[in-house]
Amino acid sequence: MTDLSSTERTTLRRASERARTDRADLYAVLDAGLVCHMGMVVDGAPVVLPTGYARDGNTLYLHGSTGAATLRTLGAGAAVCVTVTLLDGVVYARSVFDHSMNYRSAVIFGHAQEVTDPVAKQHGLRVLTEHLAPGSWDHARQPTKKELAKTALLAVDLTEASVKVRSGGPKDEPEDVEAAAAWAGVLPIQQVWGQPVPSDDLRGEFDVPPHVLKRAGEPA
Amino acid sequence: MTDLSSTERTTLRRASERARTDRADLYAVLDAGLVCHMGMVVDGAPVVLPTGYARDGNTLYLHGSTGAATLRTLGAGAAVCVTVTLLDGVVYARSVFDHSMNYRSAVIFGHAQEVTDPVAKQHGLRVLTEHLAPGSWDHARQPTKKELAKTALLAVDLTEASVKVRSGGPKDEPEDVEAAAAWAGVLPIQQVWGQPVPSDDLRGEFDVPPHVLKRAGEPA
Repeated sequence: MTDLSSTERTTLRRASERARTDRADLYAVLDAGLVCHMGMVVDGAPVVLPTGYARDGNTLYLHGSTGAATLRTLGAGAAVCVTVTLLDGVVYARSVFDHSMNYRSAVIFGHAQEVTDPVAKQHGLRVLTEHLAPGSWDHARQPTKKELAKTALLAVDLTEASVKVRSGGPKDEPEDVEAAAAWAGVLPIQQVWGQPVPSDDLRGEFDVPPHVLKRAGEPA
Repeated sequence: MTDLSSTERTTLRRASERARTDRADLYAVLDAGLVCHMGMVVDGAPVVLPTGYARDGNTLYLHGSTGAATLRTLGAGAAVCVTVTLLDGVVYARSVFDHSMNYRSAVIFGHAQEVTDPVAKQHGLRVLTEHLAPGSWDHARQPTKKELAKTALLAVDLTEASVKVRSGGPKDEPEDVEAAAAWAGVLPIQQVWGQPVPSDDLRGEFDVPPHVLKRAGEPA
């Protein structure tokens, strides 16, 4: 597994001790998140939209309606920036200035390619479904031709990316530590799954299936 | 309170039932989040970075090091897009195609203005601190002149924005509901605070202060 490429825009100049250059760190952030923020340039101005995604090897998949102008823009080869951020805590320092957040984030630069080959598209949509809802591809009804035609699948190579991780306690000035005039520490934050809520219009006697129960018992 | 302005890029064309046009809905999303994704155009390409933010009335504040190139670009008047997303659940439908997510999101378009007036800057930094860590402005040491000089504060008017909210169960096709061949429902997800972790280098006998304990007991 090669390290992440170092380009002008993926080289951290500030707080560079937070940089991670192992590809495994990139994969870990992407695999832990569910929502990415997809940035593109529309009429010269930035547009940032939240959307689902999934990773398969060194490919990031995005999808959406073929009717969405943003997806069409990206599918036509426009530059894209995809960012995934996981918030792990608020860092309380002795000084306001040194307050911070603990987080893991990945910023990916690239160009999306629309995936149109039927077998490749089916595969990509399966990867997306299984990332969003593991077990659903086999449990739920798979896409019809009409549904496939309505769905655009985009692939972005994970070639140019940067990963930042901040963890641990505050980094106060020595004189603030000595002064002992304020509390310092971390208030962790995490995402957790709640209990499954069956749909109001569920027909018949349906137990919550194992793949949903399993996830509800896992860390989110 | 005026409704959100309707411009070409803030008018939802798809899933328009998810659109919210009350300014109060925008404020609610912004006040509930801690991290935004800030998009800008650098050398013609999109760049999306996570950062803290806070709202005060109709102003969104961002801040960062005066040494950060991105902050300098924005402070010089470049267009910015700021997006805040709160994930509320994964929606399991009877069909893979109708799987979805429950979420609240706000997308703000504008231009940042650097705030340099000392009184206004102090106010903005206080708003940012109190959003990140309520109670910290009075508890922790306030910024020195040197720290203020190292910090750039940016303000974005909340004029052009769109808000989207998806909630509730899956919207399956009637024939999938009747077929009753798959479970359908929502697996909720939420952010929760953990217990405070005091800093390793805490001097003296410090109890966790009330403002931190209070927050640890609240919904995140």
